[in-house]
Amino acid sequence: MEVVFTFNIKDHQKENLRKTFRDVTFHFDEKMEGTKMETATVIVTYGDDVDDGALDRAKSLKWLMVASAGMEKIPFASIAKQEILLTNVRGIHKTPMAETVLAHILALKRSLPLIYERQKNKEWSRNHSSSELKGSTAIILGPGAIGSEIGRLLQAFDVRTIGCNRSGRDCASMDEIILFADLESRLPDADYVISVLPSTPETKGLLTEAHFDSMKDSAVFMNFGRGDLLDEEILIKALKTGKIGHAVLDVFQTEPLPVENELWTLPNCTVSPHVSSLSGKYVDRALILFEENLVKFQNGGADLVNRIELDKGY
Amino acid sequence: MEVVFTFNIKDHQKENLRKTFRDVTFHFDEKMEGTKMETATVIVTYGDDVDDGALDRAKSLKWLMVASAGMEKIPFASIAKQEILLTNVRGIHKTPMAETVLAHILALKRSLPLIYERQKNKEWSRNHSSSELKGSTAIILGPGAIGSEIGRLLQAFDVRTIGCNRSGRDCASMDEIILFADLESRLPDADYVISVLPSTPETKGLLTEAHFDSMKDSAVFMNFGRGDLLDEEILIKALKTGKIGHAVLDVFQTEPLPVENELWTLPNCTVSPHVSSLSGKYVDRALILFEENLVKFQNGGADLVNRIELDKGY
Repeated sequence: MEVVFTFNIKDHQKENLRKTFRDVTFHFDEKMEGTKMETATVIVTYGDDVDDGALDRAKSLKWLMVASAGMEKIPFASIAKQEILLTNVRGIHKTPMAETVLAHILALKRSLPLIYERQKNKEWSRNHSSSELKGSTAIILGPGAIGSEIGRLLQAFDVRTIGCNRSGRDCASMDEIILFADLESRLPDADYVISVLPSTPETKGLLTEAHFDSMKDSAVFMNFGRGDLLDEEILIKALKTGKIGHAVLDVFQTEPLPVENELWTLPNCTVSPHVSSLSGKYVDRALILFEENLVKFQNGGADLVNRIELDKGY
Repeated sequence: MEVVFTFNIKDHQKENLRKTFRDVTFHFDEKMEGTKMETATVIVTYGDDVDDGALDRAKSLKWLMVASAGMEKIPFASIAKQEILLTNVRGIHKTPMAETVLAHILALKRSLPLIYERQKNKEWSRNHSSSELKGSTAIILGPGAIGSEIGRLLQAFDVRTIGCNRSGRDCASMDEIILFADLESRLPDADYVISVLPSTPETKGLLTEAHFDSMKDSAVFMNFGRGDLLDEEILIKALKTGKIGHAVLDVFQTEPLPVENELWTLPNCTVSPHVSSLSGKYVDRALILFEENLVKFQNGGADLVNRIELDKGY
């Protein structure tokens, strides 16, 4: 059986895979256009290089692993038609993403951007408006693996956590669960509104001007999910008119964020270049998941972890 | 009975005190040199204005409350001689201080200073070395109320916490306790070395060059206790030669930190102007403690919370 990676991994990681799976032939750092794809039973990719043409050429493909959580570019119809198993690495982002969200929340609460600026000017000033996270309330849009990890950490800081999802089903580390439909009426309670929602037909444009109108004027809006959750113009207006206090954005409607976009320069907006899930431990975690699934795949392919339901897209 | 504050509080806070203690006469925002001090039974101060002369004039003084945790300037000998009860507000700093420590740790781990700089240049770059706090090890020098709160939050991030104190006595939220004497041998384990030690004869100069030699070259040293814990020249040398990775300092040998001090400009040093304990909720918390102790004082003065043992200085 041939397994082809379209990205490279470290030598000790390759060696480990070859030692564990002696009956498998591994190829690394191959281009999706290359000839290796024609005989590959399994392809492991970050997802950007998968299209209908690639799937046409991959005639032996039975399982496609996308080592990323975002699946927007994946041609689901072709995958369904060719009966290819599809998995991603949902969940391995939870630690770096939750730590990133907490980093931004605490940095703002404790005035770190101001402290960094004043250091550059050698300015010793104790005049700032630092406050405490303790006792705040956060609404988390999308309380799945990542959202629940954010909730768990926020609860350690005595923050009340309100998860918001489509189904109303219970989720870990949430003091309360509300429906998307009830979001607008509950936004006035929130000091933090944090989205980690994926991009699906239901989440595109989910947040409207009415939602931002309902937020506290001190509220911090954080988008760590996908940029199409809202029309950026609505957010820019809310920031400029002081309808909300601050935004921290790791995702945008267009990435990289164009230099002419006003979000770059608004004083109450933090622009992060889609890095919240990056971590030195990322590939190691992805490989653990891959190995677990490769054993299952060799045993018939039932119960693959993080298998994508092709009709839902996540 | 007369109670004199040498600082001002908000009107609703004054009203609340007068309503709760109808038999007490309160004065606020009085100078320590003023005549009100001569008849004061209780003086509440931030501590900077207390000296032998002030104590001489305060002939009726029975209880001095210092609404601060640092007691360096307090003339203990005179207080002991005049048999004045002395209390501070130890513990009310724990929430803002622990949140500040976590803010700095996470901001560094998730590259926030770099992200802020790149935003100014509208630079979309995903090239950085963000990693995860999870799985790290922290040594906390002074695992009292504040240190334990830091430990509690670190443990929520799956950080191993090692408390280091004089006595070896057990402390909350520490996976392990070690003695000051064993610190040097355990420093090679630590990713974070965090001091919240007060200034006492035992802690002055406690950290030596040998300690910095023993730290990991990636270690982050954080001083949120007092600046006289170490000779700053040793720290500057450790930072410049890469013996340690980074320092975050909220306290210094001389405050404000003189403009000519090299710490201001070292790229791997964060200078914070002694603000880690500031919080919009500070005075409210101090007053809760004051009221609790005023009731005890009126009932004879036994068991005052946070009473200072004059021979130890803390």
